[in-house]
Amino acid sequence: MAGSSEPTRVMVAVNESSIKGYPHPSISCRAAFDWMLSKLVRSNAAGFHLLFLHVQVPDEDGFDDMDSIYASPPDFQRMKQRDKIRGLHLLEHFVNQCHQLEIKCEAWIKQGDPKEVICSEVKRVQPDLLVVGSRGLGPFQRVFVGTVSEFCVKHADCPVITIKRKADEAPKDPVDD
Amino acid sequence: MAGSSEPTRVMVAVNESSIKGYPHPSISCRAAFDWMLSKLVRSNAAGFHLLFLHVQVPDEDGFDDMDSIYASPPDFQRMKQRDKIRGLHLLEHFVNQCHQLEIKCEAWIKQGDPKEVICSEVKRVQPDLLVVGSRGLGPFQRVFVGTVSEFCVKHADCPVITIKRKADEAPKDPVDD
Repeated sequence: MAGSSEPTRVMVAVNESSIKGYPHPSISCRAAFDWMLSKLVRSNAAGFHLLFLHVQVPDEDGFDDMDSIYASPPDFQRMKQRDKIRGLHLLEHFVNQCHQLEIKCEAWIKQGDPKEVICSEVKRVQPDLLVVGSRGLGPFQRVFVGTVSEFCVKHADCPVITIKRKADEAPKDPVDD
Repeated sequence: MAGSSEPTRVMVAVNESSIKGYPHPSISCRAAFDWMLSKLVRSNAAGFHLLFLHVQVPDEDGFDDMDSIYASPPDFQRMKQRDKIRGLHLLEHFVNQCHQLEIKCEAWIKQGDPKEVICSEVKRVQPDLLVVGSRGLGPFQRVFVGTVSEFCVKHADCPVITIKRKADEAPKDPVDD
């Protein structure tokens, strides 16, 4: 059979839900993960090695948490520490699932513009396949929201699979995720 | 494990080489097929069911074969018959490989604009995944050549994976395939 002995290395870009917030994974990245398990990995857990990448967008003005007062450098340190912990909780969700299913995996966090960081990490890590979830926005919504998946399909240096969330999973506002 | 008992149905769009012509498969669809076997199907032949679709572009002016003279309706019938046989040879290539690897498959031919037909067949057949090869053209070449893969990523009603041919497999003129 055509499969080599090396497992297929699949990079999965995961992000947080814009509705529920950290540490909940977004609807589309959960959908992409579930689809990949049931349709690609199937019963062949040993054939795949999953690489979870979470890109955190730096909060430039620090105003996402209005109750906080940043009065000294240690305050900012604490904020960064808090973001890191939240990101780890997000990754833990996926790593725990892989552990239960006996699928080998790795997970890491980077900061920056998600679409740029995903493509540069693909260059660095050289996975066999990149999996990205997508909100499946229409052309009008896309102009304002921008889509990471479209950018990756065009620019990532490996095959890319885009998985749209199911229609019945879409929240009231389609730009939410 | 997450795999259901139903095999994953993968539709693979295949076309002929523009260099070698029928019944040789194009560089990109061969690359996509080989990649899929080694990276997704791997040793799990029973987990996948492949659906090969070949879309023939109707030759509107009938001038692709300059040595032929079409003098009567039966001449045109013969031409259509000849195209059908060539298409069958193309599909035979892939079906034979699947047979050797004991992967279940089906194959069929449609006529029309490939990108439109692929998307309408996805609607009709409802595969779990669509695999399309891509020449990996730059933006300048894309404007003139148009890419089936880009259209399918946007419009097909299922997850789509685009697989670019390898750089060392590209012919002298990148629009060849």
